[in-house]
Amino acid sequence: MTAQLNARGDVAVLVPAAGAGLRLGPGGPKALRLLSGEPLLVHAVRRVAAAPSVRLIVVAAPAAEVEAVRALLAPVAPVTVVAGGAERQHSVAAALAIVPADVGIVLVHDAARALTPPELVESVAAAVRAGHPAVIPALPVVDTIKEVGPAEVVLGTVDRSLLRSVQTPQGFRHDVLAAAHAAGLEAHTDDAGMVEKAGVPVTCVPGSELALKITRPLDLVIAEALLHVT
Amino acid sequence: MTAQLNARGDVAVLVPAAGAGLRLGPGGPKALRLLSGEPLLVHAVRRVAAAPSVRLIVVAAPAAEVEAVRALLAPVAPVTVVAGGAERQHSVAAALAIVPADVGIVLVHDAARALTPPELVESVAAAVRAGHPAVIPALPVVDTIKEVGPAEVVLGTVDRSLLRSVQTPQGFRHDVLAAAHAAGLEAHTDDAGMVEKAGVPVTCVPGSELALKITRPLDLVIAEALLHVT
Repeated sequence: MTAQLNARGDVAVLVPAAGAGLRLGPGGPKALRLLSGEPLLVHAVRRVAAAPSVRLIVVAAPAAEVEAVRALLAPVAPVTVVAGGAERQHSVAAALAIVPADVGIVLVHDAARALTPPELVESVAAAVRAGHPAVIPALPVVDTIKEVGPAEVVLGTVDRSLLRSVQTPQGFRHDVLAAAHAAGLEAHTDDAGMVEKAGVPVTCVPGSELALKITRPLDLVIAEALLHVT
Repeated sequence: MTAQLNARGDVAVLVPAAGAGLRLGPGGPKALRLLSGEPLLVHAVRRVAAAPSVRLIVVAAPAAEVEAVRALLAPVAPVTVVAGGAERQHSVAAALAIVPADVGIVLVHDAARALTPPELVESVAAAVRAGHPAVIPALPVVDTIKEVGPAEVVLGTVDRSLLRSVQTPQGFRHDVLAAAHAAGLEAHTDDAGMVEKAGVPVTCVPGSELALKITRPLDLVIAEALLHVT
């Protein structure tokens, strides 16, 4: 039994939130860090739940905190909470396992991208619905990028016009993501990396400046400011 | 005659601020956009002037605004203002032309990186002083980076461990920067690119999260928040 939002929605959103994530300081899961008095996960789930296409949200929490996360999210939106694994990929697999077969589109979303607007959830889902098997939101790279070698000496300036800085939610046809997981392919840094390895074309759609990943302490200051303009 | 800060300093900082920079909205030079009631250029110059090694600051302003920029900066710090050119490179050359020969280290700094702390100015200058002919502050790339081809289809995931996101101030031995300009080498995106082409080794030192480039409207919101923690 999974809790539902819009029963007519064709999208499931998986939120792997079992990682410890020490970059915001020691102790506690990264997804539960407070932003303006509420955990990042609450902000993230609230915005995902506001996207009309979403039928269900599945959060993978640390095994010891499933009940606590369930209680935390109950007032926010109808959410299913499962126990995640040691690796992000295992958490995604655990969440994916309970998505009903008739849900056509599966999105994977970082709780740390807590301010991601519902519109971005919709635009990623829409691109999958339009026929792309795998879709990722991405922004152009604005800073000059150098490649370095030993001793931090610059090897060259990278042509940034072809580079994209990748965000989430990343969207997949349900069967495409399931097949990649069944094949045991390893994702190095993101979920799209796994289906890329399976030879599936991955397409970028425009990301959002609000979908920044909140990881470093200064990011919390930035996110706090952005909360007030959104 | 150039206005001096610390007469014993061995560093000149050039600030090319003649560009129109439309990304913060139409009209007006980017460097004069207001942040907390003051132009970005004022914020940038105030912080550079607080770095003890800095002997002089040379700002290249739009030709029509040299007097106005001079008046604007007079209460902030002793600054020399010259007329810049159409291209950033021409503005840097115009500013470089008035740096006395006995100033050993020349830094080039973006006014749009208005919150760059004095400590970063010092650390770049210190690395040049320690023997590196060209030094750039840079941060690791935190987001997953993809390379895309036609129709925004992903060609692959880039190994970000060797990528650095480049900031300013970029620091050079005076003779190295002068030689690169004399050779008429073109810089595509930054000043270090010019000396790279001349075959000079460029070394990265750790950048600062506060040295972000303030270009998009949302960046002003972010910068406003960061002002209050710095």
